[in-house]
Amino acid sequence: MKKHGIILFGHGARDPRWAEPFERLALKLRASRNDPVSLAYLELMAPDLPAAVAEQAADGCDAITVVPVFFGQGGHVRKDLPEIVDQCRAANPGVDISCATAVGEDDAVLEAVKAYCLRQVGQES
Amino acid sequence: MKKHGIILFGHGARDPRWAEPFERLALKLRASRNDPVSLAYLELMAPDLPAAVAEQAADGCDAITVVPVFFGQGGHVRKDLPEIVDQCRAANPGVDISCATAVGEDDAVLEAVKAYCLRQVGQES
Repeated sequence: MKKHGIILFGHGARDPRWAEPFERLALKLRASRNDPVSLAYLELMAPDLPAAVAEQAADGCDAITVVPVFFGQGGHVRKDLPEIVDQCRAANPGVDISCATAVGEDDAVLEAVKAYCLRQVGQES
Repeated sequence: MKKHGIILFGHGARDPRWAEPFERLALKLRASRNDPVSLAYLELMAPDLPAAVAEQAADGCDAITVVPVFFGQGGHVRKDLPEIVDQCRAANPGVDISCATAVGEDDAVLEAVKAYCLRQVGQES
């Protein structure tokens, strides 16, 4: 039976409170599935993606999907992330590592953000 | 009659494609309301927030809500943004400028991100 991990990949920041929505998201996902859900950061926070991948591989995952929790796809998602994912693949040849499009590109996510913005000005969507 | 602008405030990036979800979000919002919806960036992209506020003020907005389109609330949202908003208030004393919590703190936004993540691994939420 396949064990398919999810790694939520965020930018990272100096302020530990920055990570709160990422941690809430991980908790929500863990409540919806039995397979592992981890956080990983590009910089300033730990673990980094290679460490998170190594941990899920050690935990028996044969597939891992990395989801970039970014709105826009700039250099971090288009250039840095593929390079790190390639390193992870080389270090874990038995694990099928795939990478999703950034969450901000998803229309349902943008619809939820739109509804939030409208509520801030007292409008229903 | 009040004219209440929304300014979507993002980080900005070197890659112009980074802004695509922000532009889609602005289009969605404009389709849902008649009052102005603008984009503004902290760095690397134009306009900055003072320019976007000045434009909405010139357009007759008496209220402006700035919505930080960030997942986490780190230094950019907790420190940089309030300082810029204070400058905008000083420059536009007739405009009621308020600032929302970052969109990533909204539970419905996180639910939409969760559903997106689950779809990436073939799971329904």
